[in-house]
Amino acid sequence: MSQPARLTALPAPVRDPFAVRWPLASTVSDRERGPLPHGSPGAVLRRTAEVLGEPRIPSTGVGESAALDLIAGLLDEHGIDLSHPHAAAHLQPPVLQVAVDADALASASNASMDTYDSGPATLAIEQWVVRALASLAGFGPQADGVLTPGGSISNLLAILIARDSAAAAAGIDVRRHGLQGFDRPVVFCSELAHFSVQRACAALGLGEQAAITIPSDFDFRLRVDVLAEELAKPGRTPVAVIATAGTTDFGSVDPIAPIAALARQYGAWLHVDAAYGFGALFSERLAPLLADVPLADSVTLDLHKIGWQPAATSVLLVADRSRFAAFDRSVDYLNPADDIDSGLDGLLGRSLQTTRRPDAVKVATTLTAYGRAGLGTMVDTCHELAHAAAARVVADSNLELLAPVTLTTVLFRVAGQGLDATGLDALQGEVRRRLLTSGRVLIGRTKLPARGGRPAAVALKLTLLNPNATATDIEDLLDQVVATGLDVLTGEGAA
Amino acid sequence: MSQPARLTALPAPVRDPFAVRWPLASTVSDRERGPLPHGSPGAVLRRTAEVLGEPRIPSTGVGESAALDLIAGLLDEHGIDLSHPHAAAHLQPPVLQVAVDADALASASNASMDTYDSGPATLAIEQWVVRALASLAGFGPQADGVLTPGGSISNLLAILIARDSAAAAAGIDVRRHGLQGFDRPVVFCSELAHFSVQRACAALGLGEQAAITIPSDFDFRLRVDVLAEELAKPGRTPVAVIATAGTTDFGSVDPIAPIAALARQYGAWLHVDAAYGFGALFSERLAPLLADVPLADSVTLDLHKIGWQPAATSVLLVADRSRFAAFDRSVDYLNPADDIDSGLDGLLGRSLQTTRRPDAVKVATTLTAYGRAGLGTMVDTCHELAHAAAARVVADSNLELLAPVTLTTVLFRVAGQGLDATGLDALQGEVRRRLLTSGRVLIGRTKLPARGGRPAAVALKLTLLNPNATATDIEDLLDQVVATGLDVLTGEGAA
Repeated sequence: MSQPARLTALPAPVRDPFAVRWPLASTVSDRERGPLPHGSPGAVLRRTAEVLGEPRIPSTGVGESAALDLIAGLLDEHGIDLSHPHAAAHLQPPVLQVAVDADALASASNASMDTYDSGPATLAIEQWVVRALASLAGFGPQADGVLTPGGSISNLLAILIARDSAAAAAGIDVRRHGLQGFDRPVVFCSELAHFSVQRACAALGLGEQAAITIPSDFDFRLRVDVLAEELAKPGRTPVAVIATAGTTDFGSVDPIAPIAALARQYGAWLHVDAAYGFGALFSERLAPLLADVPLADSVTLDLHKIGWQPAATSVLLVADRSRFAAFDRSVDYLNPADDIDSGLDGLLGRSLQTTRRPDAVKVATTLTAYGRAGLGTMVDTCHELAHAAAARVVADSNLELLAPVTLTTVLFRVAGQGLDATGLDALQGEVRRRLLTSGRVLIGRTKLPARGGRPAAVALKLTLLNPNATATDIEDLLDQVVATGLDVLTGEGAA
Repeated sequence: MSQPARLTALPAPVRDPFAVRWPLASTVSDRERGPLPHGSPGAVLRRTAEVLGEPRIPSTGVGESAALDLIAGLLDEHGIDLSHPHAAAHLQPPVLQVAVDADALASASNASMDTYDSGPATLAIEQWVVRALASLAGFGPQADGVLTPGGSISNLLAILIARDSAAAAAGIDVRRHGLQGFDRPVVFCSELAHFSVQRACAALGLGEQAAITIPSDFDFRLRVDVLAEELAKPGRTPVAVIATAGTTDFGSVDPIAPIAALARQYGAWLHVDAAYGFGALFSERLAPLLADVPLADSVTLDLHKIGWQPAATSVLLVADRSRFAAFDRSVDYLNPADDIDSGLDGLLGRSLQTTRRPDAVKVATTLTAYGRAGLGTMVDTCHELAHAAAARVVADSNLELLAPVTLTTVLFRVAGQGLDATGLDALQGEVRRRLLTSGRVLIGRTKLPARGGRPAAVALKLTLLNPNATATDIEDLLDQVVATGLDVLTGEGAA
């Protein structure tokens, strides 16, 4: 393995977004040391557990200040620092300080979204947020939405609405009587769709086998020709088609328009999982990728991915608010009829939750503070970082680029001349684990699907969501990847 | 209607917990004005929406400080103040400042519970929290748990585990193949169980009709004799029996031991919904109410009810950690086999979420800061307040006590001589709405179930969760209830 090439020529950015320092929050005081604690996972978790002591509630407390010091100390010493420029593993961004401040307001108020009298102002704030986001997506005035505890739950709620709607069309009242008699309900999605689709099918009583996965093309987009064939097969009830706008690993966007046409043809619900990709709408440059989102019946978006919000700020948008009727419920202690007649109502009928934290508070604050332009610049910066990283990978014979950049992820692997497929896979896993236990570099991994005779392969992944990271930071990060690869190949510094 | 009687003799407390001022958080600057904004719900929400303006993300932002001022101003002006001593409607407490501070740490770190490399320290912190709570409940070392976004979701997860376990016993792999062929699965619970049981049955594909509700006795506890009859009926598969430890309205605790014996006899999962009641375990005086909780297979508890935590801090405990296998999942980008072999793993297999906010951070901090004794004193204070309120209701001929005090709720109604049942119901609703729109008093309402020939009746409800409220505060609150009742009955001050 040769020494890494230095990257000398980066594509010139239109402006210099790297000059802006975004105010990001962190609980780690010494950012120099790296995004993760040093040491094996077992050792780190053991040390944390030792500080916490025996898992028993103490008889008497140590007081507020000592308790905060203890827990803050643990986060500082053994926690993650997502604001470190070498944190690039997951769809888990560093967060804006303003969102943290606003989230503390939400905590302090302890308002809940289920009734008017559990928190008046936050009802209006959430309605403003979901309408503003629906408008950004291009939906009309009939659209509505709800904040949920995460993209997995948003997807589950969408498939639940689709399930009950398809069953009703077949004369079955699932809500009251269950799935009995519902003839082979199925859901279609790309093989690269998020695993929460299968999880939701299992939870909803359809079974994982109800999720029919469609192969993806060479650009990692759902193959519409295969979807058409699958939809045409008899003996199944197509409940929903799920298009992914921003696959977790590749950022690829399924062709929404032809998928929507097929879904309509077969009377299936079209759900767009834009948990990752929705944030592209903040960027004028990337927004065209999501131009067809308004064709969807429902959309998942996660502002704790692109959006720089603390978890959880997932949103389920629906094109037609009447579809939330699936969650309607009359409860004596929350929304009796005479109260509703008097205008006392809440948002109980939007989800499966009763108490619901007002996560919209931080979103409203952030959208107001930064505007679309501010967030768009952050998106563009991360997108440019991804291109810079990809260029650096391509220029380095020790690295191999495995997928084109669409949003902010880069798929690649360490080259290992003479290694077979198994050896190459093992090399990537070992390189990543060594980097993680070093504490200095936090990157992701995944599996590249088999393509044209090439078997599935382990890939390394950069998920670039830190707009304060610079091309030099990514250069340094990749230097360490290459150096670690060299160590593994030459048998040095084994764990 | 006569003028209200003053309450002169309160039961003497063992000590004077009212002397302690607990540091509670609030987003409302002028607590004197009341727990809610003044005005009709429509007017309040309209004013909030007007300040927010058209629901569009602005092109350019106003900056962090101006945005925070705007949203904080809305919470101050049109939000809820749960720290006000006249806030007594829902199982939604004022929150401890230390929990708010710790929750801000959780937001700032943006750690997630799904993998080691999405947040090392928080994995150990959550494990400490769930083990400490399991230990408080009396569970052995095999117990485990997970934090969830709310009691409704905790209940859903428990019923999901029970469903899949009962189906597996009948040779059906629900997770893979769905519910097809599973012969009439049913769940048993009290008529007073939380409505999330029916909601979960609908979501899980069993249908609401799968929830067989058992009548409650005169103490609002599930009737074990009727449960035994129902379980003995043929043609159904008993999936789970749900005992409620602390019903939402009455605080009543179902007889767990005989229910457990029946569940065991019929091979059904025993879930205890202690969302409200679990906090009684902090109090030495009230803990005996929950002595039989260790007989359960799973338990829901909500520290955002009794526990003074910001939402959401629900926990699902399971007696046997292997039962979480229902949520196991192998994901290329999160927990590939070679990583797990190297100790890199997380808590993905504990719930239906992927990204999961580290809500355990605030819980660990609070338990350490206050200890069992600190929280126990808060519980006892609220319990004493409930007894004081009940005594005041009994002593006042204008009020009628409708249920005994078990935990911290008081069910009562305004007397209305000469009114029929419909008139009495309408009176309660009108009194409460006038109080809510006045902004000065926030109380709850519910429906008292029919009993021995008496029809179901609308009840007013105090849910006393503010340990800084005093008997005098509650006296004032009830004075206003009585005065408002008088206004309604005499046709004065109509809305």
